[in-house]
Amino acid sequence: MRTFQQVNPLRTYLRTIRQEGKTIGFVPTMGALHEGHLHLARRAKGDCDIVVMSIFVNPTQFGPNEDFEAYPRDLNRDLALASHANVDAIFSPDLEEIYPTGNETIVDVPNLGCLLEGAARPTHFRGVATVVTKLLNIIQPDNAYFGQKDYQQLLVIERLTRDLHLTAKILSVPTVREPDGLALSSRNVYLTSEERKAATVLSRCLQHAQERVTAGATDPQILSQEILAMLAGEPLANVDYAVLVNPDTLEPVTSLAGGITLLALAVRFGKTRLIDNALLVPEGVALPKNRVGRGA
Amino acid sequence: MRTFQQVNPLRTYLRTIRQEGKTIGFVPTMGALHEGHLHLARRAKGDCDIVVMSIFVNPTQFGPNEDFEAYPRDLNRDLALASHANVDAIFSPDLEEIYPTGNETIVDVPNLGCLLEGAARPTHFRGVATVVTKLLNIIQPDNAYFGQKDYQQLLVIERLTRDLHLTAKILSVPTVREPDGLALSSRNVYLTSEERKAATVLSRCLQHAQERVTAGATDPQILSQEILAMLAGEPLANVDYAVLVNPDTLEPVTSLAGGITLLALAVRFGKTRLIDNALLVPEGVALPKNRVGRGA
Repeated sequence: MRTFQQVNPLRTYLRTIRQEGKTIGFVPTMGALHEGHLHLARRAKGDCDIVVMSIFVNPTQFGPNEDFEAYPRDLNRDLALASHANVDAIFSPDLEEIYPTGNETIVDVPNLGCLLEGAARPTHFRGVATVVTKLLNIIQPDNAYFGQKDYQQLLVIERLTRDLHLTAKILSVPTVREPDGLALSSRNVYLTSEERKAATVLSRCLQHAQERVTAGATDPQILSQEILAMLAGEPLANVDYAVLVNPDTLEPVTSLAGGITLLALAVRFGKTRLIDNALLVPEGVALPKNRVGRGA
Repeated sequence: MRTFQQVNPLRTYLRTIRQEGKTIGFVPTMGALHEGHLHLARRAKGDCDIVVMSIFVNPTQFGPNEDFEAYPRDLNRDLALASHANVDAIFSPDLEEIYPTGNETIVDVPNLGCLLEGAARPTHFRGVATVVTKLLNIIQPDNAYFGQKDYQQLLVIERLTRDLHLTAKILSVPTVREPDGLALSSRNVYLTSEERKAATVLSRCLQHAQERVTAGATDPQILSQEILAMLAGEPLANVDYAVLVNPDTLEPVTSLAGGITLLALAVRFGKTRLIDNALLVPEGVALPKNRVGRGA
């Protein structure tokens, strides 16, 4: 596995790869790798000749009171895991390599980016959109892989890629879960054992919602109340949002019938804020290619 | 000369060009071509194997009360002029081709973009930065050429190209002037013959400023007063700004000695707003490569 800290040597390496007619898959991460990231890498390796993974804790997507400083960092562990997943090259740049003149140029998708996560974290998606645009320009991959767990992030990146005419194909990969349903997240390490147990309520809400929609439920208000009641039944859970929205626009839906609805959850357990989501699919409706309902 | 209205056929054409090992020069324009644009095209042709010119009147860089609707458009005339200047390919897309989902994704350089022109036209550079990012991603040229007349635009584009890690090299080309000194602009056609005559005061101000700096003037306040007095002496001129600023940051300078100062002018003649600028160079100071003082 090759490792690069700087843009120019990485570009030289990738130019050679391209001249050999090989395809490049890209997996952006902030490190603290877990099975979800490795799942992205294996999917990329299945599709492409060469897999490049970036490891960069991007400061501009953290708010002033968020966990940028505390975010888990262990490069040697990440390198070992990436190598084991057959990643071909790691790009772990310094701040100055990605933000050469500071944070002067920004990329933003303000309408999509101000909803849900954006309402709680107003500069988050601007930071995500900016760093992903930079990384896609540096690496110019054929495909780039993003987890469906960060659904809104995926939507923002699909939108900016299309709008800015970037050439990469954006592919989404199902959320990877623990046996008890908890979605994998680098932030799960913050949970106490009691919070860890309480956090399974997220996945139970998603499962309940899918069962109700499969059984023919059509009223988003009733389902929303059921979900809020389930969350209220868990004393350690503090709800940021639990909403049923259109999966393309993130606007609230008026019916669960006839189309797919996104159930998006953001819930705090102690100091740790977790998100999860599922696409709720009525009987007889097909999921769009490149999306799954709740994740494996 | 090839002409393209759509991204995909243009990209197919450019892929072939690249596979032949040829270099690509890009000249973005809003049409209404004049000798300044053709100068850019000839410079590009001197440097590169193939020259692509875009002709696209970009709505997002016009303010709500500006001249988007009235902006001069004559594609057939532009095609004839471009062909005569040995442009190899024209890209004249529809709005939907450049803004496929509306104006959802924006690129902005807010600190540089809010000064001077940005103070008078608050969304202007966001529109410029967004469309130029799209065009550079579509065409992926080796070099892209911009006129030094739109100095702040040039600075914004240099900044975003570096920050977003775009691969194009940004080259600036001197302002082209009429024999009496008036900088060429597509908006000059709006001027009445009296306004046209009055507008030569801009170039006279630039020339005066350079003479004073060459002669050893060091106080920006004194020079600024002299320039405002020259502009006040022209009854048809209404000054938006006339400032002496650092050519990299656009912040006001405290001395004209020891380094290069940008004199930037924005003046209305009737309903027509013209801009012009010069880099003022003290004796013994060298201009940076890729910049000229006042333009040919």
